[in-house]
Amino acid sequence: MSEPDDRRLAWAYLSTLAQGASRSLSAAIAERGVLDVAESVRAGRYGGELASRLAARAHLDTAASDLARVARAGGRLVTPDDDEWPAWQLLAFDTLGTATDTDGPPIALWVWGERRLDELTERSVGIVGTRAASGYGEHVTTEIASDLASDGWTVISGAAFGVDAAAHRAVLGVGGATVAVLACGVDRAYPAAHARLLQRIAETGLVISEYPPGTTPARYRFLARNRVIAALSAGIVVVEAGWRSGARNTAAWARRLSRPVGAVPGPVTSAASQGCHRMIREGEARLVGTARDVLEECGPLLGCEDDRDALFRRDLDGLSGDMTAVYEALPASGVCEPAAVAESAGVPVDRVRAALPLLELEGLVLPTDEGWRRA
Amino acid sequence: MSEPDDRRLAWAYLSTLAQGASRSLSAAIAERGVLDVAESVRAGRYGGELASRLAARAHLDTAASDLARVARAGGRLVTPDDDEWPAWQLLAFDTLGTATDTDGPPIALWVWGERRLDELTERSVGIVGTRAASGYGEHVTTEIASDLASDGWTVISGAAFGVDAAAHRAVLGVGGATVAVLACGVDRAYPAAHARLLQRIAETGLVISEYPPGTTPARYRFLARNRVIAALSAGIVVVEAGWRSGARNTAAWARRLSRPVGAVPGPVTSAASQGCHRMIREGEARLVGTARDVLEECGPLLGCEDDRDALFRRDLDGLSGDMTAVYEALPASGVCEPAAVAESAGVPVDRVRAALPLLELEGLVLPTDEGWRRA
Repeated sequence: MSEPDDRRLAWAYLSTLAQGASRSLSAAIAERGVLDVAESVRAGRYGGELASRLAARAHLDTAASDLARVARAGGRLVTPDDDEWPAWQLLAFDTLGTATDTDGPPIALWVWGERRLDELTERSVGIVGTRAASGYGEHVTTEIASDLASDGWTVISGAAFGVDAAAHRAVLGVGGATVAVLACGVDRAYPAAHARLLQRIAETGLVISEYPPGTTPARYRFLARNRVIAALSAGIVVVEAGWRSGARNTAAWARRLSRPVGAVPGPVTSAASQGCHRMIREGEARLVGTARDVLEECGPLLGCEDDRDALFRRDLDGLSGDMTAVYEALPASGVCEPAAVAESAGVPVDRVRAALPLLELEGLVLPTDEGWRRA
Repeated sequence: MSEPDDRRLAWAYLSTLAQGASRSLSAAIAERGVLDVAESVRAGRYGGELASRLAARAHLDTAASDLARVARAGGRLVTPDDDEWPAWQLLAFDTLGTATDTDGPPIALWVWGERRLDELTERSVGIVGTRAASGYGEHVTTEIASDLASDGWTVISGAAFGVDAAAHRAVLGVGGATVAVLACGVDRAYPAAHARLLQRIAETGLVISEYPPGTTPARYRFLARNRVIAALSAGIVVVEAGWRSGARNTAAWARRLSRPVGAVPGPVTSAASQGCHRMIREGEARLVGTARDVLEECGPLLGCEDDRDALFRRDLDGLSGDMTAVYEALPASGVCEPAAVAESAGVPVDRVRAALPLLELEGLVLPTDEGWRRA
């Protein structure tokens, strides 16, 4: 690993200092360049909205050690300078109407794993949900995640118990790639029980975070993290969520960023589905049950029609009213003459005589010597 | 039972002849009277759209025997002449845009049971669903139906296996009243296994049909029957339904007739919930899980909720800021002088003096000798 250059050190310094997004800081960097802004901040000359927040830590330049630490863990810092920066997805933050200073794109992303971040997130769906997933929730998560992965989609999630873990495991199980977005440093296994899972994710996909190595998880970081999951995903699926749920926060971020949101229904008797039902009922999410439903929301692809209708189509569909009435008037077994059919069907006998041969053409009735019968 | 009079015989004759609805026949009856129309039809002089359909059966006048038969079964014919005719529910058919001749209100209804049809259907919810209900579906049906019945609502359904039967049984279990709408004559137990259930429904509620006694069930009669369930209900709940389901047809009728439709979600792995999920997903139904959700959809239509807040808001909508402020500054009861209103509203007194007469024009305030008060 070569020594980091000054620009990367400046990005690392500002990322660590900001501890999350700052729209004003991002705007300053875009206008004046990362080196100039970093220099201003170090010298206490930075006057942006973030100034007071930065001032307290401005003297703490851990950039070099943070970069060394993430490199030792097999990771790196990805910045807007890099080709792999997911610039296209993060543009969505520019469309936000009212937004606080922290409602912005990440300053930079700390990344563990060898895949390119832009390639991995190009076709991606976020799958999120409750830590207290039911067996049903884990089953549906597995179905949807593995189908999406088999179809070449990256799955993005957190790293929590329940739905998050089931989504990652399902994707790994079919040899797909996932991205885990953490609310702590990528060198910290959180939760600890998922250390091995995070290792496997990093081997085939990426573990990423806005926060520098060593950062501990905190509630506000989980909420900010949800914003990153939503931004990097083409759409969000909530598989199970309680009435009050972090997944609903991720879904709200997806809507703010103009991403479609799907929610999986479940038994109305299940507490783990109440949040999903609430979101569907309130129009915050569209009901989805399969990867196909998800892709109908998220995919600019898939010209494939819903063929379930064809599977269930019955022969009588598309018949005129007369023809249906005449067919129905024929007994299930045995034969019937047109006059009797006319009386039973309430259709004039001449129209019955016209309908019967058409029904024969449809393969629905057969003429016999004694009259007509169903085929 | 007294002898039927000529008018009832005429209704019975036309009901049996039409074998369902006919908008043109209903219109002719409304214009010329039932006796005159029946006479025209008998004489082959009827020229409406239904003429050819009626012609096949015009010679079959079974009115007297049909009325005798339904009377023997403990039933009667309810016609638009009768006080108990559910006229206001059936008005919804007048609002249909494009409609075929059979997309109309019933000509008359054959009824088994002693309750008044109008009273029983005044506050009613239709609960429908698949014959192949799961244990979950039967459980949720039971919960919703018994809660609605306990709250004084009539439940309307078919008489099929599965959701229909579970709904009736749940209501009977809590001493409520149900209406079963059949696709055959009310004297025929269909399905035969529900003979005892239908008997119990008739004892506390009603078993009704558009079709005269003796009529056998047929596919097109089930579809037409769904229309009657939808029309007599303030709203429809679909508990479980397969991908292609008669319940979806009932729901479609409810929407055509401007009734709210709710659908209960279930596991996405359950075939019995696919139709409900489809309807929710396509915006054909709102997700409901409890009787409370159902009443949130259906209740306001019947004024059973306290909707004074909504009415109040509507009244104030469109008022200028001054007018709203002035109105709200008036006490809920008692009078107030313009100077006091000005102080309370934070509006200059000359503008208060200008606003009060405008509010009077809106019917919101009244002048008195001592000042102004809310209307």
